Amino acid sequence: MAKRRVVVVGGVAGGATCAARLRRLDEEAEILVVDRGPYISFANCGLPYYVGDVIHDEAKLLVATTELLHDWLNIETRTRSEVFAIDRPARTVAVRNLETGEEYTEPYDQLVLAPGAAPIRPPWPGIDLPCIFTLRTIPDSRAIRSWIETRHPRRAVVVGGGFIGLEMAENLAHRGLSVTVVEIASQVMPPLDPEMAAYAAQKLVSHGVRLVLGDGVTAFEQRNDGSLDVRTQSGAALGADLVVLAIGVQPEAELARSAGLEMGERGGIRVDSQMRTSDPRIFAVGDAVEVKNWITGEWELMPLAGPANRQARVAADAICGRNTRFRGVQGTAVCGFFGMTVALTGATEKALRRAGIEGFQTIYLHPNNHAGYYPGAKPIHMKVIFRKSDGLVLGAQAAGEEGVARRIDVIAQAIQLKATVFDLEEAELCYAPPFGGAKDAVNFAGMIGANCMRGDVEIAPWHEAESDSAFIVDVREPHEFNADSVEGAVNIPLGQLRARLAELPAAKEILLTCGVGMRSYYAYRILKPHGLRVRNFSGGYQTYSAIHSQDVM
Amino acid sequence: MAKRRVVVVGGVAGGATCAARLRRLDEEAEILVVDRGPYISFANCGLPYYVGDVIHDEAKLLVATTELLHDWLNIETRTRSEVFAIDRPARTVAVRNLETGEEYTEPYDQLVLAPGAAPIRPPWPGIDLPCIFTLRTIPDSRAIRSWIETRHPRRAVVVGGGFIGLEMAENLAHRGLSVTVVEIASQVMPPLDPEMAAYAAQKLVSHGVRLVLGDGVTAFEQRNDGSLDVRTQSGAALGADLVVLAIGVQPEAELARSAGLEMGERGGIRVDSQMRTSDPRIFAVGDAVEVKNWITGEWELMPLAGPANRQARVAADAICGRNTRFRGVQGTAVCGFFGMTVALTGATEKALRRAGIEGFQTIYLHPNNHAGYYPGAKPIHMKVIFRKSDGLVLGAQAAGEEGVARRIDVIAQAIQLKATVFDLEEAELCYAPPFGGAKDAVNFAGMIGANCMRGDVEIAPWHEAESDSAFIVDVREPHEFNADSVEGAVNIPLGQLRARLAELPAAKEILLTCGVGMRSYYAYRILKPHGLRVRNFSGGYQTYSAIHSQDVM
Repeated sequence: MAKRRVVVVGGVAGGATCAARLRRLDEEAEILVVDRGPYISFANCGLPYYVGDVIHDEAKLLVATTELLHDWLNIETRTRSEVFAIDRPARTVAVRNLETGEEYTEPYDQLVLAPGAAPIRPPWPGIDLPCIFTLRTIPDSRAIRSWIETRHPRRAVVVGGGFIGLEMAENLAHRGLSVTVVEIASQVMPPLDPEMAAYAAQKLVSHGVRLVLGDGVTAFEQRNDGSLDVRTQSGAALGADLVVLAIGVQPEAELARSAGLEMGERGGIRVDSQMRTSDPRIFAVGDAVEVKNWITGEWELMPLAGPANRQARVAADAICGRNTRFRGVQGTAVCGFFGMTVALTGATEKALRRAGIEGFQTIYLHPNNHAGYYPGAKPIHMKVIFRKSDGLVLGAQAAGEEGVARRIDVIAQAIQLKATVFDLEEAELCYAPPFGGAKDAVNFAGMIGANCMRGDVEIAPWHEAESDSAFIVDVREPHEFNADSVEGAVNIPLGQLRARLAELPAAKEILLTCGVGMRSYYAYRILKPHGLRVRNFSGGYQTYSAIHSQDVM
Repeated sequence: MAKRRVVVVGGVAGGATCAARLRRLDEEAEILVVDRGPYISFANCGLPYYVGDVIHDEAKLLVATTELLHDWLNIETRTRSEVFAIDRPARTVAVRNLETGEEYTEPYDQLVLAPGAAPIRPPWPGIDLPCIFTLRTIPDSRAIRSWIETRHPRRAVVVGGGFIGLEMAENLAHRGLSVTVVEIASQVMPPLDPEMAAYAAQKLVSHGVRLVLGDGVTAFEQRNDGSLDVRTQSGAALGADLVVLAIGVQPEAELARSAGLEMGERGGIRVDSQMRTSDPRIFAVGDAVEVKNWITGEWELMPLAGPANRQARVAADAICGRNTRFRGVQGTAVCGFFGMTVALTGATEKALRRAGIEGFQTIYLHPNNHAGYYPGAKPIHMKVIFRKSDGLVLGAQAAGEEGVARRIDVIAQAIQLKATVFDLEEAELCYAPPFGGAKDAVNFAGMIGANCMRGDVEIAPWHEAESDSAFIVDVREPHEFNADSVEGAVNIPLGQLRARLAELPAAKEILLTCGVGMRSYYAYRILKPHGLRVRNFSGGYQTYSAIHSQDVM
């Protein structure tokens, strides 16, 4: 049998991983990795931290060198080389040496496309002015570093309040710049539900980042002093000595498209569950492909390194005749800035609504990351979504200073394994006072969900708090209630509730609230046996204020 | 229908939780909690940290006061009161007021026993000398604090190197004492496999804790200056100004035993899956009961707060006619000291052997807690055990400075949901450079396990490294190999392996090793297609040295 010859286009996360796995599965194969850039296998997720000088040494960003790939894995790499055409019938790719201009063809038995995605650069007036940057490659990050170190900019505008935008905002603030984030959506971190993104927004603002939400950039204008005005739809002119575009990325799919491969509706390459394109000899992995979200059933672009790595392994397996399948994505992601972590897994409420999925319940909770009596306990603000019919966990979002990724990881694993809220309720997790609680945050999420499933509590959606006819009872202590409460609520402390039943209307539904939702649950259990009509707001005043903070920001 | 009257004996984790859940399920019930001590619902897991003054304020240890239980939950509590007999036919308990000596009876419809477990105090000569303490209650911890603050002891001996013993060792060191831990087993943390406990031992020693392993205390002798000699089986005399006994606990099962309730072989109260004792009106929860380990099938004593809480909820549910079941324990636990975290879930190798379970595979790995290029990456030393027939994950142990509890929690959730190594391989977990890796530690564990399952690598047990006939090849670079390696190994760096195949014996089995197990896996994949007989040691030199450290400590 002849040796297999595999050409891999793109040598960062997906491409390098695929090539390495191919070698481990097939010692005889000829493997060639071609990349347009000067480096293969660099840590693109680390670039914002290199800009921020949190990662000081550029060499640290090189995860694997061409020498390593050659010596350990017998893989040939060609950097500064672009594959610019695919001749599918001939099974060759056309390669251009970007340094010499030389063009030549390379044959393949299988071709793997791992070209990644490029930062979006809209055709706004002034977009090509010198102090406007995007961040995709090591040279990109070097350019921003150099601008900071030689021009000493004071004011940065980050266009885009997504994960990368916020990482950039923190890193630029870390370099001493005054940072403004402009986001066209009415919230930061658009993948999250807005009331959960609110915790991120509060944190950013508390660290001096200015947020311009619900407003889009229209143009950049250079002033006489060389600085920019960033013009927005609302008419604002934001002064900037440095602009980073972090509006998102789009698949580098032109090569695939021009080769006639099937594309998805979102502009990514369409692949099957073995990462095979519409040409059975061509595979595609990473940021350039569309992936199926197996919870919502929707095709998505999910430019994240974790899925890219798994896809790369699947493609290598498929090329070597193995029946490995990519199970799709569930949308796990995390972002940290200024000591806060925000993470999510599974579907958000907005994703479910977009997909037309109904019959789910959302709950909120604010458990501590570890025993409250042990020093340094911090709340984790959580939102968990499950299916009403059977309690199947559909998604979770969390924000807080400690222990956030841990709880989202546990729930990510639970979702993968089709767990219900009853499973979360019973989870046996690590507990010692510095590490968790006898009831962990994940257990609390399960218990609250299970309480709903069993009919031990009924949840009212928060928008009902706005209704004039709602009879809202806040069962906290007077000093808590007086500090701030849901508008229009009356205060009956939990400890007095049994003695003050007569104050409650028998004919009207009572909506209960408290600080985080625990005491109102206790109150529900007191009132329900008396034949009163009761429902609870989930998450108490903490969730109310998060929702409300959206209006006033 | 008459009101239900429930008496709960013991008001700490299990008892207080059960009473609170009972109230939430039955607003009408009469609920009486009786506790021998001065406080109900105190944070007994926090006591070592109160001794260490990490928790400074004693009031923080009171999770719920009698007032709170009364006002919020309408629960009557009687502290300093002991239930000393049960009259099962009459359905009454005999109570003694420990302050007045008064005795009386209380009727019950259901009785919940949550008496906890008492520290073991062997009848060693000198055991009642004044500076020898155990730690179970707030007054116990107050006594140790007082001894430290008034007597200014310099040298502490902690008898017992289990979780509580090590927490005490850290907290006493934190108070400035020179600490020796005496443990009769040949390792600290006896629930762990010895080579995993070795990381804990190294950490303790590096922080100045003296370990006396494989040696038992025989007596305490008072010197003229008031200090003690702690005498051991080996003939040592360890000087001590303060001794803490942390040898373990035994169920407070005398009340149940004298009432004729069925007991287990380990001295705990036997209960069914609804926490019902052999008397259907009497339930038992918490440290006093035996629990079934659902992985090994063995009855165990598992005196931990998490299971106690879940048991308490199950008992309350059962009393209220609900069909909730306790699913047993899987042995998740965590312990931290000197910045190190050690955690486990599921079965250890020793637990499986004890239970006579065979057909499992153990693997070792040492992934970073987050991307290596992001500052502060720390290794997590992991051991994962799975069933050879289908890859079912049976257990995991981990030690490291960061991210340990998170990975064990994910695997705990996976084990609960009957996950295989293939599921871990595909887990979609939180990744950004400060939080994890594109391949998380859990993914690596799954990949290595899945490699074994698919036959892509074969693992040799480490004891084969001791065999004279083994041909061991270390594929690290010479400078690594020369620093230290498996005894008798020859060095062929991975990058030279393809060119030096002729140096390998065709007739002999080759055993591969490297630093952590990655390069030796690559080497396996190179050698295997050449028809060589190859197996790998799992975990590389890091695991070898952990195993070896047991011998020399």
